[in-house]
Amino acid sequence: MDPDSVAKAFVEHYYRTFDSNRANLVGLYQDGSMLTFEGAKIQGAPAIAAKLTSLPFDQCAHVISTVDCQPSGPQGGMIVFVSGQLQLAGEQHPLKFSQMFHLMPTPQGSFYVQNDIFRLNYA
Amino acid sequence: MDPDSVAKAFVEHYYRTFDSNRANLVGLYQDGSMLTFEGAKIQGAPAIAAKLTSLPFDQCAHVISTVDCQPSGPQGGMIVFVSGQLQLAGEQHPLKFSQMFHLMPTPQGSFYVQNDIFRLNYA
Repeated sequence: MDPDSVAKAFVEHYYRTFDSNRANLVGLYQDGSMLTFEGAKIQGAPAIAAKLTSLPFDQCAHVISTVDCQPSGPQGGMIVFVSGQLQLAGEQHPLKFSQMFHLMPTPQGSFYVQNDIFRLNYA
Repeated sequence: MDPDSVAKAFVEHYYRTFDSNRANLVGLYQDGSMLTFEGAKIQGAPAIAAKLTSLPFDQCAHVISTVDCQPSGPQGGMIVFVSGQLQLAGEQHPLKFSQMFHLMPTPQGSFYVQNDIFRLNYA
């Protein structure tokens, strides 16, 4: 698969999992992974999964607007940059967000998330 | 300097240069650098500088809202994620944007931009 297709497939998988069973995202992170969520820095798969599952909303739906990707260097990593909207259950208006992932290859031929930064686009 | 201070100093330098003399940004990129600007992919310092200097506006001013940073891996790189507003001369309303940089260390102890992705946050 070309990098753009890999990025698109990752993004679809990530948000489908987020919107259906957030706890399953733990498998995409490793011990050295970092998440910065609205300025809060969290390291390691268990802490990241705990953060994501404790966010103050239950049902949500992500709608993706754009996906940009670039190779991140000679180690086979990939930068994925996403913009989209987050619809929370019971809220009238969706929230716009931007998020970037730095994916690194695993020995099994898949990718894990090394870096993850999420920001709402405040008006 | 701690990573957050390095990231903040880079961001201030980048946008001050962008707003005063965009052509000087060429020194921050190398041959392997990539810019994705509103979905358009450009590789290499000369082509990136040509893109930035040919954008359809002259005077502009960036105002930074947030700067997040994380180490990108064992090679000493750094991910910098920025949100802010771009005020164009003659336009009443600023444009909101999100931009990420992947900085890699140089032998001289400085950083160059390996990856650069820019997106306006459309309403």
